[in-house]
Amino acid sequence: MQVETVNLNPDEMPRQWYNILADIKINPPLGPDGTPITPESLAPVFPMNLIEQEVSTERWIDIPEDVLKVYSIWRPSPLVRAVALEKALGTPAHIYFKNESVSPPGSHKPNTSVAQVYYNKVFGIKKLTTETGAGQWGAALAFACSQFGLECKIYMVRISYDQKPYRKAQMQVWGGVCVASPSNETNAGRAILEKDPTTPGSLGIAISEAVEAAVSDRTGKTRYTLGSVLNHVMLHQTIIGLEAKLQMEKFGEYPDVIVGCAGGGSNFAGLTFPFVYDKMHGKQIDIYPVEPAACPTLTRGAFVYDHGDTAGYTPLLAMYSLGHDFVPPPVHSGGLRYHGMAPTVSQLASEGLITPTSATQVEAFKAGTMFARTLGIIPAPESNHAIAQVIKEAIKAKETGEKKVILFNLSGHGLLDLGSYEKYFANELQDYVLEDSVLKDAEKIFEAFPKPKILKSI
Amino acid sequence: MQVETVNLNPDEMPRQWYNILADIKINPPLGPDGTPITPESLAPVFPMNLIEQEVSTERWIDIPEDVLKVYSIWRPSPLVRAVALEKALGTPAHIYFKNESVSPPGSHKPNTSVAQVYYNKVFGIKKLTTETGAGQWGAALAFACSQFGLECKIYMVRISYDQKPYRKAQMQVWGGVCVASPSNETNAGRAILEKDPTTPGSLGIAISEAVEAAVSDRTGKTRYTLGSVLNHVMLHQTIIGLEAKLQMEKFGEYPDVIVGCAGGGSNFAGLTFPFVYDKMHGKQIDIYPVEPAACPTLTRGAFVYDHGDTAGYTPLLAMYSLGHDFVPPPVHSGGLRYHGMAPTVSQLASEGLITPTSATQVEAFKAGTMFARTLGIIPAPESNHAIAQVIKEAIKAKETGEKKVILFNLSGHGLLDLGSYEKYFANELQDYVLEDSVLKDAEKIFEAFPKPKILKSI
Repeated sequence: MQVETVNLNPDEMPRQWYNILADIKINPPLGPDGTPITPESLAPVFPMNLIEQEVSTERWIDIPEDVLKVYSIWRPSPLVRAVALEKALGTPAHIYFKNESVSPPGSHKPNTSVAQVYYNKVFGIKKLTTETGAGQWGAALAFACSQFGLECKIYMVRISYDQKPYRKAQMQVWGGVCVASPSNETNAGRAILEKDPTTPGSLGIAISEAVEAAVSDRTGKTRYTLGSVLNHVMLHQTIIGLEAKLQMEKFGEYPDVIVGCAGGGSNFAGLTFPFVYDKMHGKQIDIYPVEPAACPTLTRGAFVYDHGDTAGYTPLLAMYSLGHDFVPPPVHSGGLRYHGMAPTVSQLASEGLITPTSATQVEAFKAGTMFARTLGIIPAPESNHAIAQVIKEAIKAKETGEKKVILFNLSGHGLLDLGSYEKYFANELQDYVLEDSVLKDAEKIFEAFPKPKILKSI
Repeated sequence: MQVETVNLNPDEMPRQWYNILADIKINPPLGPDGTPITPESLAPVFPMNLIEQEVSTERWIDIPEDVLKVYSIWRPSPLVRAVALEKALGTPAHIYFKNESVSPPGSHKPNTSVAQVYYNKVFGIKKLTTETGAGQWGAALAFACSQFGLECKIYMVRISYDQKPYRKAQMQVWGGVCVASPSNETNAGRAILEKDPTTPGSLGIAISEAVEAAVSDRTGKTRYTLGSVLNHVMLHQTIIGLEAKLQMEKFGEYPDVIVGCAGGGSNFAGLTFPFVYDKMHGKQIDIYPVEPAACPTLTRGAFVYDHGDTAGYTPLLAMYSLGHDFVPPPVHSGGLRYHGMAPTVSQLASEGLITPTSATQVEAFKAGTMFARTLGIIPAPESNHAIAQVIKEAIKAKETGEKKVILFNLSGHGLLDLGSYEKYFANELQDYVLEDSVLKDAEKIFEAFPKPKILKSI
């Protein structure tokens, strides 16, 4: 066999998400005055049922039936043993991957977009706004809105809008309206365009536009959605790891090593949090979040209070950060180009429960190409970072002769990112190494903010 | 549930293909002198083991273990009941689809590319050539060559090469070399370029280049491959229908109506041939091949002897045809823009065992959009033609109140064809209606060739 696959039956799909906030403590988000924000202050931006989920410390949270119904389109997702990759590497390691590329939008993102749209619908919301960089989150939200009959407006960073025409067409197929950001539709957008009519845009600007569009709708029936970073997003993604645990049991194995790429943290959290619980209770597992070397939030950033967005509109979050005005080099992994990291993932890193590492984009594409040539599937550039680490671990196992069991998350496929592969084959991908001075500059902005407390969960 | 899915276990995958030539007779291919060609005359183009398969009349042919291994990457493919689509249509019909979009190249094509590459490898061949229009076949061959370690050279029609950059990148990820056709690498290509340096190319020219590149390799280690039309291609695709039969049994249902889009005939044959066998033995099934109205081979063409390629290099095949120099209008379904139809499929049509029908491209995209908005998956433009017919049948069932069971083949996904969806939403898709005079012109060329005999299999 080139692969061995365990598919769960539909009735084996987990009925609850795992909430890691039952088992770890995180520093609370702070408002502009430096004191913890109240749930009520977020009400114009998010529906109250999701805000409650954001602050919940219940360990298990029921997945609503209507969410399970939509999940049934692609879940349970397969767990696959990559036999052909093991052979090509000549490793005694067993390599498994959870295949999240099988969803209609092609990534793990709909695990949370479907849930978020559901809760908004239940709360009476008619329209959702969001920003998107590479386009995976925007596509996932458009898909989820088409399932529940909500309107969907996506502000897509202009440079991506122009470079990736297929992404906006994908959102359009699902009825989503995608505009290039900055747009003329918001005060934030108009202000930027006035200064610089040819700006390529940025995620920070797009967030500002999406939030403004939500809170300024006078009907009160519009809200904003975010595809990563927040606690409830990590929560929804845990279905990945919960399924993977069941499937690993059916293979009769348990992972020694778990790997996920990490941008805002959501696919990494989704696969690993249920296993982090085991690690807290005695299991020996090496857990690696893999970042791009060009945007090394966990590996070279500081654990600080910082804003989630460039403009500084969001509350201060306790997280690893490169500084909210850090502009990552233009690596071809839009989903990993984020200055911060989910507070929950950051907390685990600060406690040493996970072991951050990084890969350059050339390493990543080399690994992804090897994966495609052995297993057929063309991975997303983001997922290639995880694969690079998996291959390092598999080669280490070959050298030591250890039969390691390695599990990683294939967060998405690369079919709408094939242009970046073309650049890789043309030797046009630059490998960026950050100067220390860049990081030192970033540190200055942290001095203005409070310091997170040192917390220890276990 | 939005969907209900039956996945087979890996050990339930069929171990044999079904060869319809055991149950129907077709007129033999003829050489330039009007007499049946010998298998040996094809030896410079195809390996002898595949030529033997092309003429075999054994009903069941074993699938080699090494082919099953590669199939395991995506097979058995899911059979899905489209509950959400039934609800949206308000139909009492049960709608099932076989999801062939889950293969790495994204279509049914690797069912035969994997088999063809395997047989070529066993025969000692080191390199394969082919042509591709829209790119699905080229991608499938590159994928299969990467699995067996053969070189792969693809001549891609220039206009598609320029319009669909992601397709050539996809082939490149799997190590395939894709050049725009006409190229400077063959006599055929150079001759065309000399006359018209800016020609958009055509499938006919690309076939000529790929055949020339194969037969002119002096090492004798290069052969040509074809992705549709031929008997052995239809044979390899029957795994679709054989799996679907097992899965329909698990659902406890049997189809009253079966639908597949039809260009050269391979995905249609793959799903339907095992059910055609049942129909020959008493089952009542309506079986619809669906063509684009712009290229209505079965619905408006003639059952004649004609060449498979534009230039007239191939043997004469007994098939429905619009004439080998018919140039289909530029509909956005590259896989359906073919003047002929597989001789086996043509024979079934001539005997009334299948009921050809057609859809316009606007009907097709409308149907595909409804499918995407209910079930998430964005179908290939080709598959949209099948969906258009399925929706017609489901609405008919609603009107008559009959609980019809409808099964169709989702031959591929549309992620690399999203540009055509964008044109659909911009109301830029033209609906082509062929003048009768066009068809009458085509008939003239048939007068020069022998007439096929009227054969009756049952």
